[in-house]
Amino acid sequence: MTAATALLTDRYELTMLDAALKDGTAQRRCVFELFARRLPGGRRYGVVAGTGRLLSLLRDFRFGDDELRFLRDERIVDAATLSFLAGYRFRGDISGYREGELYFPGSPVLTVEGTFADAVVLETLALSVLNHDSAVATAAARMSVAAGERPLAEMGSRRAGERSAVAAARAAYIAGFGATSNLEAGRTWGIPTMGTAAHAWTLLHDDEESAFRSQVAALGAGTTLLVDTYDIARGVETAVRVAGPGLGGVRIDSGDLPAMAAAVRAQLDALGASGTRITVTSDLDEYAIAALAASPVDAYGVGTSVVTGSGHPTAGMVYKLVAREDASGGWVAVSKASAAKASAGGRKAAFRVREGAHAVQELVTVSDGTRSRDDASRHPDARALQVPLVVAGEADSAHLGAEGTRSARAHHATARAELPVQALALSKSDPALPTVFLER
Amino acid sequence: MTAATALLTDRYELTMLDAALKDGTAQRRCVFELFARRLPGGRRYGVVAGTGRLLSLLRDFRFGDDELRFLRDERIVDAATLSFLAGYRFRGDISGYREGELYFPGSPVLTVEGTFADAVVLETLALSVLNHDSAVATAAARMSVAAGERPLAEMGSRRAGERSAVAAARAAYIAGFGATSNLEAGRTWGIPTMGTAAHAWTLLHDDEESAFRSQVAALGAGTTLLVDTYDIARGVETAVRVAGPGLGGVRIDSGDLPAMAAAVRAQLDALGASGTRITVTSDLDEYAIAALAASPVDAYGVGTSVVTGSGHPTAGMVYKLVAREDASGGWVAVSKASAAKASAGGRKAAFRVREGAHAVQELVTVSDGTRSRDDASRHPDARALQVPLVVAGEADSAHLGAEGTRSARAHHATARAELPVQALALSKSDPALPTVFLER
Repeated sequence: MTAATALLTDRYELTMLDAALKDGTAQRRCVFELFARRLPGGRRYGVVAGTGRLLSLLRDFRFGDDELRFLRDERIVDAATLSFLAGYRFRGDISGYREGELYFPGSPVLTVEGTFADAVVLETLALSVLNHDSAVATAAARMSVAAGERPLAEMGSRRAGERSAVAAARAAYIAGFGATSNLEAGRTWGIPTMGTAAHAWTLLHDDEESAFRSQVAALGAGTTLLVDTYDIARGVETAVRVAGPGLGGVRIDSGDLPAMAAAVRAQLDALGASGTRITVTSDLDEYAIAALAASPVDAYGVGTSVVTGSGHPTAGMVYKLVAREDASGGWVAVSKASAAKASAGGRKAAFRVREGAHAVQELVTVSDGTRSRDDASRHPDARALQVPLVVAGEADSAHLGAEGTRSARAHHATARAELPVQALALSKSDPALPTVFLER
Repeated sequence: MTAATALLTDRYELTMLDAALKDGTAQRRCVFELFARRLPGGRRYGVVAGTGRLLSLLRDFRFGDDELRFLRDERIVDAATLSFLAGYRFRGDISGYREGELYFPGSPVLTVEGTFADAVVLETLALSVLNHDSAVATAAARMSVAAGERPLAEMGSRRAGERSAVAAARAAYIAGFGATSNLEAGRTWGIPTMGTAAHAWTLLHDDEESAFRSQVAALGAGTTLLVDTYDIARGVETAVRVAGPGLGGVRIDSGDLPAMAAAVRAQLDALGASGTRITVTSDLDEYAIAALAASPVDAYGVGTSVVTGSGHPTAGMVYKLVAREDASGGWVAVSKASAAKASAGGRKAAFRVREGAHAVQELVTVSDGTRSRDDASRHPDARALQVPLVVAGEADSAHLGAEGTRSARAHHATARAELPVQALALSKSDPALPTVFLER
């Protein structure tokens, strides 16, 4: 697999570029906006994730010899366009919501400005990254709310495409998970990694006791033993006998979890292992986590549901041209007219309006295409939501790598703390904040 | 991003390896099996996809200096395990269902044989690839059935993680789609690429007519024009006026598609453009495609629903130890006992039993761990489903690259043609074939 990202692109972007280079519109200044028309599944808020990854991928968005050869051999664009692409790198500006920020219908999550040629080719990559990562982060935030102070680990790599799994671990971490099982996510993004043992470990050995003895010998009594391969009560008894009452933890991966957790806690306490922690991991989602709130569970491991967005695997964001230069160099706000997909043309500035400690409104001011002079000072109780991410093609390095990921996680916690408590309910409803558009 | 795939792995696989190297069980011969306990969502059959990708990724499954440094710095495994990993490459055997084959609950989709050390570390990567790709292929096959002879294009890259999008394009192609919008899928897997134009193309221009004129000038009258940016009837009129009655196609991306398709067809015919094709693309899934069967639609473009498995984004396959050597070198069939997740231990051989032209049963014969002598000759009306994929660490190159992808697509068509016609209904029901386990 190549690291080049330029062909992670829908063909029509390059054929539009080809046609625009011929008729001169390729050089028109454009503003594209990435936003969601709605929140899926009656969610109350969305969580922006993927921004830091997108900025990294953008650095590799170049058309090298291999990419150009493919485009030439397949006759996708003509020679003039090939020559343009050979020199292409994004030279425009991108501003947007900080990674980890909440978003609502119509929030201008990213604003991409440049020539049509600069900006049109980023559509697919930007949407792939933001739609996937934001879907995971949005689901993960709900699980994090449901788990309260109890730690959550993401363990769903096996239920997601192998590279999306790494992105999902990162998105879940930003939205409040504490660790991941995915080693590449640890290496690339600095996320703490964790793990216990699989049923195969017990089955590999002649009996459960030998398996537990070997695991404790290798990893210490602080390890977590998987106790449900055969019979849970016998598994717990064996685990404490082998590791002693200082056993770090047991994991339960099947059965009726509230009942199991209570029984295992009572058994552990009776065996003197009152400090041994109980981790549960069987097909949890935000609702199952919430249903375990009163159970003696110490930690949750979540797989399928978090990496697949808990029923909503894509955030459904779109990338739309909202303003462009006209032939005389002035700005024109533009938008599609079809009713169901109508979107607001014009360049946006966005603010989270607060009353006291709580967010009450998503305020989006709209201008034609002129860069707005609107700022938070005009809205004293509001927080400006957009920050510069890329300026003249150069990404702000604060958003990249492990540091950017940690900072997105911290920002998410701050932004979520502004929501009124009823916005954190898991039930389906309207967006927690109304989005108000204000024409300037 | 690195091309190395060895850290696309859950941490517990390496800590189990670490413990197994210490107690000697790492060298026990093991048989792991990758299978699905059930088909999601009342589906009648599953489609195996990802095999060829997995074999490619396996070649890069090596622990280089960077990977080893991470594992050492994070103290994930000890020095002896690091040294083992430095020399690791998979040296075992993998057999399995041909890519594109159908599968049913309990079908032994992959069988991985080697030492515990060889095989345990492949769990996450194998599941990530097969679960994602098979989920997409299973949904895509249903869309392909619903579309009948009409061509289907995959256009969902923007709704999937950027690398999963490439894999999704490939899986959809295997299951019957004819093309993809994703250029990287064209380059890497030889899949035909296609595209039309976005609303941004029309909005970039001073009016719809200028946009259409430029597109036709650049791409010829055979191009497909997107006619729903403003008013569809006016869009169609302008399109034919600009391109002439030889216009290749129009695309409709919004509105009530059956009504729109009929109106646009009538308008095109009245304008003399009876050869102009109608492509529809608005949030289609297998049900929407089926509902358009009687409408004058010439081609479908499918996005979100195919790349997200149409409601089931992961196939839910698992990777389980089913047999291992005991201390004296004999084979022991093993399985987890917990009721809800019980699975059949033992090595499996699998056959599709047919009566006349039609498949009637998924026959799975079970031995302890001995390599079965069972073959199709014992089942004269049956087709053996497993083929060697990797022998002593070497992948069969017939399954790799563009050639392997084309061959998987052809095999899928053959396998699907064996199903009785009622198995192709979209309605929820039981698996089309019963899986029968036979202890040998």
